Parts: sequence; C-alpha cells; structure tokens
Amino acid sequence: MMKASEWNVGRYLLRRLEQVGLKHVFGVPGDFVLGFMDQILESKVELITTCNELNAGYAADGYARVNGIGGVVTTYAVGEFSALNAVAGAYSEKVPVVAITGAPTVENRRHSAMLHHTLGNYNIPLEIFERVTVAAVSLADPVKAPEQIDRALRACLYHKRPVYIELPSDVTHRSCTEPGDFAFPEPMLSDAAALAEAVDEAVALLTARNNPAILVGVEIHRYGLQDPMNKLLKKTGYPFATMLLGKTALPEQNPQFIGLYEGMSSRDYVRERVEGAGGLLCLGTFMSDFNLGGFTAKLEDNRLIRAIDGRVRIKNHYYNQVGLKDFIERLTEKLSAGSPGSLDVRPAVDSCTHRKSAAFEPEPGQKLTIRRFYDRMAHFVQSNDVVMADTGTALFSAGEVFMPDEVTFIGQAFYCSIGYTVGAALGAALAAPERRVVVFVGDGAFQLTSQELSTLIRNGLNPIVFVLNNDGYTIERLITDGPYNDIQPWKYHLLPQVFGGGRGCDVYTEGELEEALEKARGNRGLTLIEVHFDRMDCSDSLRRACEQMAAQYKRSNPG
Amino acid sequence: MMKASEWNVGRYLLRRLEQVGLKHVFGVPGDFVLGFMDQILESKVELITTCNELNAGYAADGYARVNGIGGVVTTYAVGEFSALNAVAGAYSEKVPVVAITGAPTVENRRHSAMLHHTLGNYNIPLEIFERVTVAAVSLADPVKAPEQIDRALRACLYHKRPVYIELPSDVTHRSCTEPGDFAFPEPMLSDAAALAEAVDEAVALLTARNNPAILVGVEIHRYGLQDPMNKLLKKTGYPFATMLLGKTALPEQNPQFIGLYEGMSSRDYVRERVEGAGGLLCLGTFMSDFNLGGFTAKLEDNRLIRAIDGRVRIKNHYYNQVGLKDFIERLTEKLSAGSPGSLDVRPAVDSCTHRKSAAFEPEPGQKLTIRRFYDRMAHFVQSNDVVMADTGTALFSAGEVFMPDEVTFIGQAFYCSIGYTVGAALGAALAAPERRVVVFVGDGAFQLTSQELSTLIRNGLNPIVFVLNNDGYTIERLITDGPYNDIQPWKYHLLPQVFGGGRGCDVYTEGELEEALEKARGNRGLTLIEVHFDRMDCSDSLRRACEQMAAQYKRSNPG
Repeated sequence: MMKASEWNVGRYLLRRLEQVGLKHVFGVPGDFVLGFMDQILESKVELITTCNELNAGYAADGYARVNGIGGVVTTYAVGEFSALNAVAGAYSEKVPVVAITGAPTVENRRHSAMLHHTLGNYNIPLEIFERVTVAAVSLADPVKAPEQIDRALRACLYHKRPVYIELPSDVTHRSCTEPGDFAFPEPMLSDAAALAEAVDEAVALLTARNNPAILVGVEIHRYGLQDPMNKLLKKTGYPFATMLLGKTALPEQNPQFIGLYEGMSSRDYVRERVEGAGGLLCLGTFMSDFNLGGFTAKLEDNRLIRAIDGRVRIKNHYYNQVGLKDFIERLTEKLSAGSPGSLDVRPAVDSCTHRKSAAFEPEPGQKLTIRRFYDRMAHFVQSNDVVMADTGTALFSAGEVFMPDEVTFIGQAFYCSIGYTVGAALGAALAAPERRVVVFVGDGAFQLTSQELSTLIRNGLNPIVFVLNNDGYTIERLITDGPYNDIQPWKYHLLPQVFGGGRGCDVYTEGELEEALEKARGNRGLTLIEVHFDRMDCSDSLRRACEQMAAQYKRSNPG
Repeated sequence: MMKASEWNVGRYLLRRLEQVGLKHVFGVPGDFVLGFMDQILESKVELITTCNELNAGYAADGYARVNGIGGVVTTYAVGEFSALNAVAGAYSEKVPVVAITGAPTVENRRHSAMLHHTLGNYNIPLEIFERVTVAAVSLADPVKAPEQIDRALRACLYHKRPVYIELPSDVTHRSCTEPGDFAFPEPMLSDAAALAEAVDEAVALLTARNNPAILVGVEIHRYGLQDPMNKLLKKTGYPFATMLLGKTALPEQNPQFIGLYEGMSSRDYVRERVEGAGGLLCLGTFMSDFNLGGFTAKLEDNRLIRAIDGRVRIKNHYYNQVGLKDFIERLTEKLSAGSPGSLDVRPAVDSCTHRKSAAFEPEPGQKLTIRRFYDRMAHFVQSNDVVMADTGTALFSAGEVFMPDEVTFIGQAFYCSIGYTVGAALGAALAAPERRVVVFVGDGAFQLTSQELSTLIRNGLNPIVFVLNNDGYTIERLITDGPYNDIQPWKYHLLPQVFGGGRGCDVYTEGELEEALEKARGNRGLTLIEVHFDRMDCSDSLRRACEQMAAQYKRSNPG
C-alpha cells in the first residue's frame, strides 16, 4: 500500500489503468517514454513490447474488443504517428483504446528545443490525435494531471472510443494526489419523454405490420447488453440477424438467430426475411457499406427503427438522448410475443453457409477451395475461440461460418485496414489467455504487419494463423485488376523459423489441411498454416459486394 | 501527344509529377485509389507497390533525398494514416515528398456515407495532414484542381517539405485544362538591405577574430548549393565540418573538410577547431540535439552566424528574408582568404575516425567489434555509393566513416524514426539505379520495417543490407536498461529465403565478414549480411550522446 506521498503522475495513471481493467499495455520504447515504462514495470500492468507501433495499436484494439479496454504506449511523434492508423480504426469502430505517449520535457517544450523526433511546433501530435479521439490531454502540470487523466478515461469508457494522453518525461515522476476509487462514468440518462414516445412509436410500427425482425449490431457487444437482448428476444420471439461488424454480439446458437445479413449477398432466406420485415429493429448497428453487402441492402427508411449512438431514429426522425439499454428494456416491457405465424424463424444452425450441422468429409487429393476450406473451418472452430478475420476473402467467408457459443468473432468490417488481425491477435490472445485464437488473414494483408508473428511467438502464445495464399489482393482484383494487385510471393510457412518459435506448414489439398490441423492440435506454440488457393477464388458474397465497388469504379473511370 | 480534350485531373497531376522530376511513386492499392493507379500505369511515372504504406512513405523520402522530390500514393484513411509518420519525418527534415491519397467520391462525401475506411467526418485526413505539410488540398472540383495541384507542387519545391493532395475517386477522370509548362517556384527574393547588412556584419565578425570556420548543413544539399559553396571555400580557405544531418552535403575528399562535428563527441581536433572558431558560419544547418552531440556543443551565440530557413541569425538578432544562396554568393564576394596561420586546416581524409587512409588488416578469428567493423567499412564504401544509416549505433558510427567522393550519406539524424532506412533504401535504389546502395541498420530498427526487403528483392535491386545484431535497442540501453530494450532474436539472414530472392548470411568474426563481402561482390541481387556484436558495443560518440539523454532521464526520474 503506497503512502500518499509516493504517488506521482505516472503511478496515478497506471493505477487508473488497472482500475479500469487494463492488465496489459502494448508499445515500443523510445527515450521520452522510458521513464514511464520503468513505472509500468513496477505496476500491476504488464508491458508487452511489439516490433512496431502500428501493431502495438492493433494489439491494443484487439485486446479492447475482448477485454473491454486496451492501451498503447509510444514515444513522441515517431512512435505515436506510426500508431495513428490503429487509433483511427478504434475511433471508427467504437473500440476503447487509451493511447499514451511519452513526450519531451515541459522545459524543452517552452524553449521549442530542436530535439530528435520534434517538428518545430510541439503541439502537432496533440492536434492530430484530437481528431481521432474523444479526449486528448497533455499532462503538463502534476496538479491538474489527475483530473485530466480521470476525465479522459471516463470519456473513453463512456463513448467507447479512443483517448489520447501525452505525458512529458519530466512530469511522470512529479508528485500528485493519491488516486482513490475511480469514478466510472454514469450511463447516459435517457430523456424520459423521448424514450417513452420512441418506444410507443416503435411498438406501433412493429405490431402494425407483419414479420418483425431484429438486426443486432456491435453496440450490443460494446455495452455488454446481451442480457437485456436475451430478455427482449425471449419476450417477443422475433428472429434476429447480425452483420459482419457485430457477428457474435449474441450467440449464434440461439434458435432465433437466422444468420448474417449482408444486403444482396445474404442467403436468400435471410435477405427475404430481413428485407421483408414490416418493421425492422436495428439495435446498435453500424449501417456501413460492407455491413450492408456494399450498400445493396433494400431497407427502406419507413420500416426501420435504428438505435445507436445514444439516439433512436424511426423512419426519418430522431429521438435524441435515448440510451440503447433503456430502449431495449422498455421495448421488452411493451412488446408482446409476435404471432408465431408471422415470425418465420429459421435458425441459422441448420442453414448457415458454412456450418457444423453439414457433414464434412475431406477429399484428400482435392485442391482446396475457399468454399471447402470454410466448410472445414465450421468444424474446426470451437466454443470459446476468438476467431479473427482480416479484411479480404477472410472476412467475408469467415463471416459466413456458423460460430459455436462463446465464440468472439473479430473483423474490422467497417474501417477495414488490412493486416489488422496480426497485431490484434496479440491483443486478443493476451486478453483471454485461456481461449484459443484462430486467425484468417490473406497473403496481401499479412505482408503489411507480418513481423508481429514474432511477438506472438515471443510471448509463448499459441494462436493458429491461417495465411490464405492466393497470390495478391483479391478484393482489388475483383474491382479492377492490374499489376498493383500482385505481391511478392513469400514462403510464409518459413517465418516461424526466422522468428525463433512456433511451427509453419504449407497446404494445397484437403488431405494436407487435415494433417496440418492434426499437428496444430498437438502444438504448444504458434501454428502458421499457409493455405494455397486460386487467385480469384472467393465467396459469392464477396464477389457481389465487389460488384458494387467495381460499378462505382467504372462510373468514376469511364473508358 | 494528347489532345486537349483528353486531359483529366489524374493525368494532369501525373504530367506535373513527371515535370517536377518524379519517375517513380510508391504506394499500396485500395479501392479509392485504383482509378488513379490505372492512370499511373498509363503515364510516364512508374508505380512501385510496397508491402505497407509506412515503408512507401519512407521510400518516397529516400527517393527524394537522392532525386530531389518523391511521391507516395495511398488509399483513404487506412493507407494515408499508416504513412503519416513518414510524411512527418520528411516535414521535419525538409524532404520534398508529394503525398497523394485516393478518396471517396465527392457525392459520397456530401452524404457523409458510412463507407469503409471512413471516420464520420470526411475532413479528418486533410485536417491531420495539414499539420505536417506546407500545402494540403482536396481536389473536389476539376475546374480548380489544376491550380490546386500547381500551387501544392510549387510549395513542395519551394519549402522542400511535403505536400498533401486528396483525390476523390470520381474526380480523377474528370476533364480539366491541359497542363502547359510547369511554373517552377522562384527562389525567394532576398531583401536587399537585409542581405547587405547581414553580409557586412558576418564579414566583420569572421575577419575580426581568429580561426574562422564553417559548419555545412543539409540545406546545402536540399537546395543544390555545392557550386556556390565550393567558390566560397576556394576564396576563403576556411575549413568546414558537417553534422550528422548533412554529412556529404559537400564531398569529404575536399582538403578543407575537417570532419564530423558532434559537440562533445567530436574528435578532439574537430571539437577544438569548431568551438574555438572566433566566428563560425553555419550554413543551412539544423542545430538539433544529435547534430550537436546531444546538445553538448559549446557554441556561444556571439560567435555564430546561422543561415537557414530563408533568414540569417547573427548572435541573437535576425535578418529576415535572406536567401541562403544569395548570402553565400555575397559572402564570397566580400570575404578574402583567411590568413593561413589562423586557418589550421587538418583534412579529415587523414584523421577521420574510420578512414581508408588507415590500413586495415583483418584478423580472421577475431570477433567483430563496432570499431573494427566500421574501420573495415571505410575500405568497403566506394565512390558513388548511397550509404544509409539507421538511427542507432549505425547512424553514429557510419557518420564517422570517411566517405569517398560522390557518396550520398543518408541518415534521419533529426527525426530519428528507427527502421526508416529499410523503406528509404527502396527509394534511393530506384532514384539512382546505377549507384550501389549500402544500408546499416540495427536489429531493433530492422524489425519495425523488415518486410520491405521483399520489395527490394521483387524489383531486382541489389543493395547490401548490414543488419547489426546486438540483441536489442542499444540507444535505449545506454540511457536506461530494462526488459523493454530486449527484442525477439530473429535469424535475419534467412529472410531472403522467405521473400524469394537475394542472399543472406551470418557473420561473427572478421574472417567471416571478409567472405561475406567477397560473396556480395559477385551477387546480382540483394545481399543481407547479419553481423553479430556484443550488446553494449558502440562508438564513444554514441555513448557520450546517450550520457546526455541518461542524465535527462535521471533528472526526470529520481530514485
């Protein structure tokens, strides 16, 4: 137990990080942040150093999606700017990440000293991070620092978006007040009248028409609203679908789960059921392009009830300050069970594109196809896995695999930064060491962030990483093909040897895949399985989503 | 020859890039930039795709340092943010880089459509890049685009700093006016009175006191002022030193070159000669910490004449709007030869720390040390090489190697982003394919950006890359050691095998190094030589520079 006089800004910050639930932070050292890193070593938070800062940021994001909050620690300018894309992705997909950067001393700042890593104007990093965070503070004064830290962390948890904390290297050891209990942010207080009217209108819409249904979105996961959702589902009997971002926000084993909705790319039944719903309740959903099959969704405004970002939109008008939890709970009170006849619920467990309920018999000599591979994966993923799918064929195909209970599916389906999963897997694996992490990442994507395999190996983690080698950037090929979609062919399966741990192998046929999966079962370290596919092999859903982008490309680039 | 009607915004931009001297641009595809990439393929500019965007940015920077200007092409948000750190480094070190990003359509922007890669507010990327560029434009209107493009490119060339061009994907094929000749920016017009008075005062200061000397800085390289400098040197006979950033701005073979000045870390003679100069002419120099031995330089204001950024500072007053070229030329007119007695010029060729004029006899069984390695390198670097040294032991030691004529030395000695050279080497090699590229990069630094070795191999380039394996981040170890300075040990020399080309080997002793160098001579592709050193082995100059940072660390982190 530390004496009041032993508290300083760095320790205060670390105590707060511990209190908000961070057991690990990710980062790369640099002289301006070494002092704080020493403090991390003495704290209850563990520092995991990564090969580079972009991957540290991705790791913090992956950690946050499993743990509820994540943290990345970098040095001034050179470190933090390298992590910016990861913070921007977290901002875009409502992932609570704390981005801390060690900075030059307050004294140096006053003199605008030409220190290494600086840009003339010392405010530039803060001004940049202000744009992709919900709070950005510079802890120049140890008296103000506690309030700044607390305010930033509350904003992070409240908005579920990143915050930025700049920590001058001469402030981190300055004394400050003792941190007491952390005052967690209160959930938003709903406007009672708006809530009541929104619920009434929603109920009226849902009950006046036929075939009501629910689209479950990622905010259900971010705000931990599984229990209220389960009560709503039980009361009403409504079927629900999820979208790519938000897949596994509720367990797929639920008999009211009908599958993945992705606009025109959905399975026929799912598309018809969702697009034929007289009233569609969209709870915490991002209505973004890939979530909607490349904006091919036929969801007319006058059928939609959309609850997200603390407000409810019905048709084209908004009820502001209506919290998602309150809305769900009040709907549960007011709605009665839909008439069974009009509910038309076909559980996905028996109809999902790739599912365990469909038997799989490997044909050993047969060259692997995307379809067969994911048919196999439906039997490979287990309860409690963290399944991560990178942007590319992986995201779209893994999105159509029926996930067992307790699986967390992670795909950056809105921001779509390729290579994200290699760093994010590090975070997910450390956030939940008792869970198996399975990663599907395309070859092109993997090349962006490949080095982080080394950190997975270094920390004795044992994810199974499938590198899908089809010789280039598939999504781009489907839009318009050109030499820029080609990549250098690597022998991905040799990387564990270079990085000093884990095992790698190379598979072409269904038989070879079976052997590789068997070996993976017995492997204590990281397993990298490089799977070869034909260049243009991908799911129909991806092909259709790309048709939209190809059409846009042709409109923009005539002749 | 294109008809007037065939010009569109993308082609216009490419014609301008060609006119300002770009033969290559570096980037990674994404759907918003595919249209522009197709236009690049039809243009005279060659598109070099890289593994990731940070390395594309570093490549553009390396290219610019050799070619005079460089270009990086990315997709919206996910691509450009990944490149931000490279653009910031170019901004900080006055490197002219054109950062082009493909963006969503103007139409989508108007609707704030939730497209993949977006962040809600479509202006965020431009607002971010405004802070690390000297011009930032979004080409929303094909009528205005030509003027915007021209203005941005002029700013780039004039200020020698990066500019940002956002290119909506529905604008790149819109018709626009034909590009005529490009109106290159005029050099700054010096204020005649300020110039005259600055010169008079400088001349008075230099001639009134003893032992005048010159510090040559990186602006001499950026603005191509070698000829005016040679005339000045010839007229006056003054000795000159360079600093890390700016090394080889003038040929080191010049008998008036006395060596590298690095504050307290300089060789005794250099330190005494520079710090003992009654008047010191600092031409185009960045007075930054690593340039000055960690701010250990004893350079009192009242001895200094500093010309940089378009103004001259003498002691503590400024003459604004005085161009460097004008200042040098006018000084050349007004100064006479220093009296030989007071000049005390000892050419570096015979006294530099690591030099060819010192015989080197390998001791085959002897384990390599940093000192012996760079003694050997002084015999290995050749005329016309591009020598690149990453931040770490490499920068400080290679900085003390005497460079033959026509060598361009590149080290990011002010911004100091580790791993920079792996991407930058790609740029340098393509900017000057007839020149040999030699890279010195520490193991810790290499891990940040290792994948770009693949692109060097892919493009049939043949740099020699020395990966200096001393098991971790040495600079940080010298400041304060901790587990965060450890890295995962890789078998770096196996990477060529993974990436599909080039050769790698592993050396511990002087004899093994000789064999490796011999093999490199005959190798047509990339050569990676992994050289093992003891952990704490580094140059005395680096050790001393780190003492400064360690002292700062101790001041900030008592107990």
